[in-house]
Amino acid sequence: MVKDKKFVEAITSMDEDFAQWYTDIVKKADLVDYSSVRGCMIIRPYGYAIWENIQKILDARFKETGHENVYMPMFIPESLLQKEKDHVEGFAPEVAWVTHGGAEELTEKLCVRPTSETLFCEHYANIIHSYRDLPKLYNQWCSVVRWEKTTRPFLRTLEFLWQEGHTAHATAQEAQEETIKMLNVYADFCEKALAIPVIKGQKTEKEKFAGAKATYTIESLMHDGKALQTGTSHNFGDGFAKAFGIQYTDQNNQLQYVHQTSWGMTTRLIGAMIMVHGDDNGLVLPPVVAPVQLVIIPIALHKEGVKEKASQLKEKLAKVARVKIDDSDKMPGWKFSEYEMKGIPVRLEIGPKDIENNQAVLVRRDTREKIFVSLDEIEEKVAQLLEQMQIDLLEKARKMRDEKTYTVKNLEEFKNVLAQKSGFIKAMWCEDRACEDKIKEETGATARCIPFEQEQISDNCVCCGKPAKHMVYWGKAY
Amino acid sequence: MVKDKKFVEAITSMDEDFAQWYTDIVKKADLVDYSSVRGCMIIRPYGYAIWENIQKILDARFKETGHENVYMPMFIPESLLQKEKDHVEGFAPEVAWVTHGGAEELTEKLCVRPTSETLFCEHYANIIHSYRDLPKLYNQWCSVVRWEKTTRPFLRTLEFLWQEGHTAHATAQEAQEETIKMLNVYADFCEKALAIPVIKGQKTEKEKFAGAKATYTIESLMHDGKALQTGTSHNFGDGFAKAFGIQYTDQNNQLQYVHQTSWGMTTRLIGAMIMVHGDDNGLVLPPVVAPVQLVIIPIALHKEGVKEKASQLKEKLAKVARVKIDDSDKMPGWKFSEYEMKGIPVRLEIGPKDIENNQAVLVRRDTREKIFVSLDEIEEKVAQLLEQMQIDLLEKARKMRDEKTYTVKNLEEFKNVLAQKSGFIKAMWCEDRACEDKIKEETGATARCIPFEQEQISDNCVCCGKPAKHMVYWGKAY
Repeated sequence: MVKDKKFVEAITSMDEDFAQWYTDIVKKADLVDYSSVRGCMIIRPYGYAIWENIQKILDARFKETGHENVYMPMFIPESLLQKEKDHVEGFAPEVAWVTHGGAEELTEKLCVRPTSETLFCEHYANIIHSYRDLPKLYNQWCSVVRWEKTTRPFLRTLEFLWQEGHTAHATAQEAQEETIKMLNVYADFCEKALAIPVIKGQKTEKEKFAGAKATYTIESLMHDGKALQTGTSHNFGDGFAKAFGIQYTDQNNQLQYVHQTSWGMTTRLIGAMIMVHGDDNGLVLPPVVAPVQLVIIPIALHKEGVKEKASQLKEKLAKVARVKIDDSDKMPGWKFSEYEMKGIPVRLEIGPKDIENNQAVLVRRDTREKIFVSLDEIEEKVAQLLEQMQIDLLEKARKMRDEKTYTVKNLEEFKNVLAQKSGFIKAMWCEDRACEDKIKEETGATARCIPFEQEQISDNCVCCGKPAKHMVYWGKAY
Repeated sequence: MVKDKKFVEAITSMDEDFAQWYTDIVKKADLVDYSSVRGCMIIRPYGYAIWENIQKILDARFKETGHENVYMPMFIPESLLQKEKDHVEGFAPEVAWVTHGGAEELTEKLCVRPTSETLFCEHYANIIHSYRDLPKLYNQWCSVVRWEKTTRPFLRTLEFLWQEGHTAHATAQEAQEETIKMLNVYADFCEKALAIPVIKGQKTEKEKFAGAKATYTIESLMHDGKALQTGTSHNFGDGFAKAFGIQYTDQNNQLQYVHQTSWGMTTRLIGAMIMVHGDDNGLVLPPVVAPVQLVIIPIALHKEGVKEKASQLKEKLAKVARVKIDDSDKMPGWKFSEYEMKGIPVRLEIGPKDIENNQAVLVRRDTREKIFVSLDEIEEKVAQLLEQMQIDLLEKARKMRDEKTYTVKNLEEFKNVLAQKSGFIKAMWCEDRACEDKIKEETGATARCIPFEQEQISDNCVCCGKPAKHMVYWGKAY
């Protein structure tokens, strides 16, 4: 295959320097640009188009499950943020404060929302009166701000885009069902749309959300063996309801507190896709969320009939895929590199020879396999290929994750494995915070989750040797 | 028709107190709620669903015309805001300032974006190098903040939702064409989707955007005779390009400055729809953007077959309209009032008598006309009715506006008309700022625009009597 060497050489190899490889991709695939605003990113058209596809699919799933979108103010008065004790302790250290409006100093400072529990609670206290008003199933698409010290595009930025679901229910059971339902929506979305396999489980007390009764999470493994939390779903119980006075009259005319949940996913998902599917030639996008699924590159553009045939093909294939044609006067080799960098799932090459033989060449981005296809069956073949690639990417990612998942029975083994390798560590835990802290200190790994699918690796805690309560996934995390 | 009197009485009549009528509707139609954040609004599910419909249509039109979406940071460092002199003078007095991140004071304060010209310019300076990089046709959906003293839901709030288009072009001519093209997209959208007629024209020097070479606007008339600017499109020339150093190498290898535009529409459009189409029974929504276009209300719900027939109808009509069924145990009269308040375009009533006669009753929200329709042709009739209502609403609004548009030839006449009536005033102007100021002072009216469609009302300025240059639309504005 013709390659523009100069172009390809500009990317750091992922085995050589994973962090640099990541940064190279976000820049060279035109996903992100930097600005003079420290720690914030500009999401460029190609990056934003991926986010729009994510939004579209997730939003449809939220609506199918009965949720409605709303918009809350971006500011939270200091006194409102302080209403729930654990919540303010968790977030106050990392918020941005507005102290002046125009030339005037504000009498009460406002924080730029780091998350909107407090605003939703205030609103719910206002609009929920009777059991007839329940459940309230709201979601919001917006940006939030957290004052981070070190940042990386998509993974950790001062401002990021996300959705935050906030629901209120009559009973504790309903709230728990909602929490798990949305975790399952997230897990299914990650696997089906992003081709990213996830471990579903519960966070430890230490790792749970500020103000939550229980936090559930989906955890994924990146190519470098580090873990990434791809989505969380929280059951608040009635803690926020009591702090904000959200009460309703039940069927027996008794005042009751509501039970609440919240759940969120962010632009971090784009970072996850890069780090799960990408390779040394750039991004690899799962067809379901790829802004362009197939790029047509005419070969020997100026030969008679090539441009016309390519245009015909574009029109034909637009019925089964999101198609782009590049008939600019750049060299085919440059185009191949460029669209590999951008992770477009399938490339179609067509030149005079192909036209003569009534065929085209399809090249898969992930395997780079070349497939010669008759033009008579090009639509079916493209549709099949995109479907197959979506399945294969998930399978490949699952295999990668399983290969990087290790089982250990004591702290020595734990340390030894992480000294040589990087990945998920499965190990038993007594549920004692002291052991969790010690593991972090000695290995650098945190408890990613207590998975729903438990295994009995041994009877004893990997750290203290006392009787174990759970098997836990541990790992170094983004 | 059965009415729940108590419910209807709760709304102030628009003739009695227009401002209170407006406030009643935004609250009682469940569009908005207030919070403890001064001047900000909570957009509730029903209000947000209208905004989603607006976004969907506008976004498709932007993409059809070659625009791409991006996301810029919400913060602007003070030094960046100051780069273009007129721009900072226009906006600095009304921005919110972030001075602290976490516990630390920032070395440079950040404003929360009131608009994003400066960020787009910095980015363009970074990514535009050659004529091959042009044009750049970007748009952003986000919220912006302007520190207003007095606020009203949708019309003027500290924070509002909007889209801001920002484009860069090789030539002045292309920038001008883009400016007018997007103004036309806006005008067409207002008329076709929102059924709001608009006057297209140019803003005077006094009223133009801070930093623009020329501002174009679409102006609409509200039911109370006040004007509302529903969208603006600005030609920046190369002023921002020079301030930010946005240059490209042209085909002759010469360095050139780009020419830029920006254009925006906001959640204010929802306020415009309320004030153009609403009546004393509440909101009236044009079918194109109504979240629910038809509500089915079964009569005598507990009679045999009624509930089933209503469900069948819902399924059938879902093919031609966004349909909701209300088979709750509330009284039909309550439901009629409720869905009139919410402005649902068509109500369908079906009871045992109707089923016997193989018919249903359709009631138009705008005229409240009752139409008996055979169930055999219900789909066509509903589709036709929605289409007709969309056309009729625009026609009615145009008639209202024309009736409230007055032509005057001197300042005395100007004052007399506005003393008794409220509406658009068409009058000639010499283009002198002193006359514009005097008219404002003596009549309270500002120059809404110099319309593209000029008329020669007289030869002389309405104020000073000197030779006139343009006919201008004047009015008191929101």
